[in-house]
Amino acid sequence: MRWNGWGDPAEAHDLPLAVRTLLPLLLGRIRRPDPAAPLDRIRIPESALTADDLSAFGDAVGREHADVTAEARIRHAGGRSTPDLLRRRETDQQAPDAVIRPGSHDEVGACLAVAAARGIATIPFGGGTSVVGALDPERGEHRAVVSLDLRRLSGLLQLDEVSGEAVLAAGTSGPEAEALLSARGWELGHYPQSFRYATIGGFAAARSSGQNSAGHGRFDSMVTGIRVATPTGDIDLGRAPGSAAGPDLLRVFLGSEGIFGVITEVRVRVHPVPQDRVFESWSFPDFASGSAGLRAVAQGGGGPTVIRLSDEAETAVSLAQVGRIGRALAKGASVVTVYEGPGIAERRQRTAELLSAAGGTSSGETGAEEWLKGRFDGPYLRDSLLDAGVFCETLETATTWANLQTLRAAVQEALRAGFADAGAKSYVMCHVSHIYPTGASLYFTVLAGIRSEPLTTWRAVKSRVNDVIIATGGTISHHHAVGRDHAPWLAQEIGDTGIRILTAIKRELDPHGIMNPGAVIETAGARAGRG
Amino acid sequence: MRWNGWGDPAEAHDLPLAVRTLLPLLLGRIRRPDPAAPLDRIRIPESALTADDLSAFGDAVGREHADVTAEARIRHAGGRSTPDLLRRRETDQQAPDAVIRPGSHDEVGACLAVAAARGIATIPFGGGTSVVGALDPERGEHRAVVSLDLRRLSGLLQLDEVSGEAVLAAGTSGPEAEALLSARGWELGHYPQSFRYATIGGFAAARSSGQNSAGHGRFDSMVTGIRVATPTGDIDLGRAPGSAAGPDLLRVFLGSEGIFGVITEVRVRVHPVPQDRVFESWSFPDFASGSAGLRAVAQGGGGPTVIRLSDEAETAVSLAQVGRIGRALAKGASVVTVYEGPGIAERRQRTAELLSAAGGTSSGETGAEEWLKGRFDGPYLRDSLLDAGVFCETLETATTWANLQTLRAAVQEALRAGFADAGAKSYVMCHVSHIYPTGASLYFTVLAGIRSEPLTTWRAVKSRVNDVIIATGGTISHHHAVGRDHAPWLAQEIGDTGIRILTAIKRELDPHGIMNPGAVIETAGARAGRG
Repeated sequence: MRWNGWGDPAEAHDLPLAVRTLLPLLLGRIRRPDPAAPLDRIRIPESALTADDLSAFGDAVGREHADVTAEARIRHAGGRSTPDLLRRRETDQQAPDAVIRPGSHDEVGACLAVAAARGIATIPFGGGTSVVGALDPERGEHRAVVSLDLRRLSGLLQLDEVSGEAVLAAGTSGPEAEALLSARGWELGHYPQSFRYATIGGFAAARSSGQNSAGHGRFDSMVTGIRVATPTGDIDLGRAPGSAAGPDLLRVFLGSEGIFGVITEVRVRVHPVPQDRVFESWSFPDFASGSAGLRAVAQGGGGPTVIRLSDEAETAVSLAQVGRIGRALAKGASVVTVYEGPGIAERRQRTAELLSAAGGTSSGETGAEEWLKGRFDGPYLRDSLLDAGVFCETLETATTWANLQTLRAAVQEALRAGFADAGAKSYVMCHVSHIYPTGASLYFTVLAGIRSEPLTTWRAVKSRVNDVIIATGGTISHHHAVGRDHAPWLAQEIGDTGIRILTAIKRELDPHGIMNPGAVIETAGARAGRG
Repeated sequence: MRWNGWGDPAEAHDLPLAVRTLLPLLLGRIRRPDPAAPLDRIRIPESALTADDLSAFGDAVGREHADVTAEARIRHAGGRSTPDLLRRRETDQQAPDAVIRPGSHDEVGACLAVAAARGIATIPFGGGTSVVGALDPERGEHRAVVSLDLRRLSGLLQLDEVSGEAVLAAGTSGPEAEALLSARGWELGHYPQSFRYATIGGFAAARSSGQNSAGHGRFDSMVTGIRVATPTGDIDLGRAPGSAAGPDLLRVFLGSEGIFGVITEVRVRVHPVPQDRVFESWSFPDFASGSAGLRAVAQGGGGPTVIRLSDEAETAVSLAQVGRIGRALAKGASVVTVYEGPGIAERRQRTAELLSAAGGTSSGETGAEEWLKGRFDGPYLRDSLLDAGVFCETLETATTWANLQTLRAAVQEALRAGFADAGAKSYVMCHVSHIYPTGASLYFTVLAGIRSEPLTTWRAVKSRVNDVIIATGGTISHHHAVGRDHAPWLAQEIGDTGIRILTAIKRELDPHGIMNPGAVIETAGARAGRG
């Protein structure tokens, strides 16, 4: 993975000609930025670890896995949000003081013991794909910070083919997990956009949601068990598929983003590899009628494996990417459906009835197939846009069906007005990719022609958007999680009592406060730093 | 509701003749016990509340709602487990020192403030149907204990017909909720056996599961929002249908059984009242083949609204109840399916294919219709059995499909051997009423001919069963919850770290420890008392 961009450089591609033509029309004249600094020119502070610290971590994981090289430290210095990528184009950067790579659950526990005894902040690191600042090398009030790289905790540890459950080591990446499972005829079927790099433990820690979540549910609902190492003891949760044995404490760790401990193993529901796959695209007059169609499917039990609705703006640009810009702009809103697993014909028929009744017209297989082919390529496109000087970022929320149009309009307007205040033109696209009986997600992609200080401009716009999301009844995150970027808004979502609950759990499990300081729960230090 | 038995006395009925004939064959000669003491002969200790305490509660809720009459105190002195009912046949009983009936969320908060300031234990009381000792009038280390009766918090507070969400006051009973919703064309569809008396808040606090859970899910999964008053502040949770805004703290309160605070409002997913209902019964050679059929439906997406499998012993007795004992004993295991909502024909067809492939034979509509008619009558039958001197109790657990036969056999044997050690014959029945892709519940009904000391005998048997459930990988409760009866086993299920998490949350929200002391989290006092 590129250290300051997305994925495999060999997979990256230039902007399609149609997009390059479209951008100045949408965003005005754009200046190409200075090229990013190469890795060997990056300057980071010297490691604050003492030789004795390093030796203690080395005893825990083996000397070769306690790494203070500049390259390792730079590669673990952040996630993959646009602010991360912009910051990492600069020459001077912050970085963790070392990268520690435990190879087992017990080695994770040993690392946490070393860190707790020595007061060293510890940031669990899976695939490095956080887009909410969860991997910032923040030491809080501690004298040093290490990145705990979990990629050595990899593999399929158990497969129960009767119950349809697999235990995966937390550092197993999405593609590794699917390869191990498919060799035995099984699939997890969790495909967030970060799939190619993100890890099973990361999916759990951040409450990920995947493209097939209409069929298989959010990652939350796929997890049936979990093993966690905390600074003060281990915990194994999830004895039974349904239980009333007190509150479901597994849910305390899903979404905990490393602030209580380190998820080391995850037990997940799996299903046989689907034999068939059917695609169907739909066209709607507009976003409102399309979302009425999705609501009918969510509430009426249509049962597609994938269903997503792109608004007029996203539909137009998607079509531009495949060179059909002319037809695109008259196309309204588009819906992609994919069906896998048992009973495809009945499910497709039922979904088609519901979408037709809502005003949709079937437009064949092509659009849905094209979506599937390109579904992991969005982040590459962002790198190309940044190289061209176009600011590009995504953000997401969710709300009830009754509030969906209101929230979408409010966020669109906050983005438009925020950039306009900074003198920048913007182009806002939106899609719905996750539906529930009672509501849906909203995922926004914004392009903007920012002339200078993109980080400062974006911080102001994003803050305005977050305020609007909270004021308009949305959640501060549907599947990107909280990290440090959303932490200042969490108290408004869960209240002071909610923050007190999280703080009480953290105090109990992590009394020295070494685990991912400033993530999820805002700290005074972090507040001041962001001022 | 009868204070020392189940439900409306007018609805109770004598044991069917076939059952009366069968019982001595199964359990040996049984002696009829002394009749239960009538309410006006029950002796309870004088209320430990001072006039000043009572006045403070009266200020919070109105004088007429702070009740120290013997009748109110006796009626709130426990739940509806068989040990509760046996204990409440005695003349000398324990009882809460008063019954306080708040009429609003704010009055609940005011009551908790009074109780916290004065060090008075507080036991939230909904429908009074707990079967795990969650309503024992235990004062812990406090000088007094009050029952906080929540039935005045009743009503449909909001209905969002676009999103399919309703907000119900926590003290609304099952039938009240369904009546309010159906007047507007909607249904909640949550039908646990306690449905006629239990409350919405109780469903949430105990993580209830209903007979239609194959179609609508556990109550856990129907709750989309919650409002709670704690001794140290309010909390409102559940902003969006899907969220990654930190851990899902709503799950901290589902299953909390009043130890953190009082649930005052619950937002739930609702659906249009189903127009059609289709029944089909099935017969299987044995429990193992029947459970293979249920597994195929759970994993293959059949989609019945209700599906339940009775083992050979339960099938025989069920048929005896409707007077067909001769045919019954050759019948193997029986399955009931019910379909409601959209797409019934396809769902029934798919389920029928899966059940047939597993060795099932369709046996028409009658059995399923009879089950539906009698589905809330089990607790009445228990009263009749107790009157006849037959011990009758239920218990439940859940596990993975791979472990289902092993766990069932182990629990059956623990029950049989436990009663045999006390010189009692027993008859153990089992059914599966809740299925999940990865596993299922197991619900046991045991009849026993205990000659003397039924409470002592049952305590020993139940303890043995709980040990076996934990040792064999089951959960200590699938839907009855923890209360005080299961609390000693919870640490084995969630580990010391799990107990520390619950204790930390309780310390934060309820620093004086007034909320339902000894429930869920075992206390030293409770341990000693149970010796």
